[in-house]
Amino acid sequence: MTPDRARRRVADGRVARLATIDPDGRPNLVPFCYALIGDTIYSPVDHKPKTTTSLRRVENLRVRPDCIVIVDHYEEAWENAWWVRIRGRGRILERGEEYERADAALRDKYPQLADDPPPPAIVAIDATAWTDWSYTP
Amino acid sequence: MTPDRARRRVADGRVARLATIDPDGRPNLVPFCYALIGDTIYSPVDHKPKTTTSLRRVENLRVRPDCIVIVDHYEEAWENAWWVRIRGRGRILERGEEYERADAALRDKYPQLADDPPPPAIVAIDATAWTDWSYTP
Repeated sequence: MTPDRARRRVADGRVARLATIDPDGRPNLVPFCYALIGDTIYSPVDHKPKTTTSLRRVENLRVRPDCIVIVDHYEEAWENAWWVRIRGRGRILERGEEYERADAALRDKYPQLADDPPPPAIVAIDATAWTDWSYTP
Repeated sequence: MTPDRARRRVADGRVARLATIDPDGRPNLVPFCYALIGDTIYSPVDHKPKTTTSLRRVENLRVRPDCIVIVDHYEEAWENAWWVRIRGRGRILERGEEYERADAALRDKYPQLADDPPPPAIVAIDATAWTDWSYTP
């Protein structure tokens, strides 16, 4: 697919998956909601994580920023399947102009966030490489 | 959710995502089709990988078997969202009884595979720990 198409698919996606590295060197994996601005993927950190799993990605990215994100589309008609994969480096935002811009983009994309107070932190993943694939080239 | 429910959701899922570790220590991530038998997740390796990306998970698992799989469900009604995450260790099957059993289970689950010859290899991921989450506990 064209770079423009890959970017549009990521911008329009509703959920992505993020892989990070745990302190013991094993991979970790979590689905997340996000907004794409330029070459950066922003994702809010939960207010009241019910488990420690939702904070693990934040702790992991602080120690090892290298991570990978995938946005994919599955259909039983496999010829319509595709994915876009983004290598990147994570940063954690807790306030400031970039935080505000990301928070606004997330609220714009997800009406579900309308009544939530500002998140305690926002994960920012700066894309360093894009790869895409489709079943039918 | 109950362990039975988590297991059923994974068994019924049509696509999952697998995170492995690249030779340089960075995470890798790919969506894949699979069949669950007991505590093992089986996934066929493509016949004609169009890129090296589909073989990367095989090479990664040979060197570092520790991996993680997620099966998740997204809905705009977030209260219906859930995921099940499985830590495991990967093995590569190229022939034998377990290979045959897995190939049959994959063909049973995915009619799309009906006309394909046996895959060059099947990835087997032995689950070592299950974690699940749902938005509404």
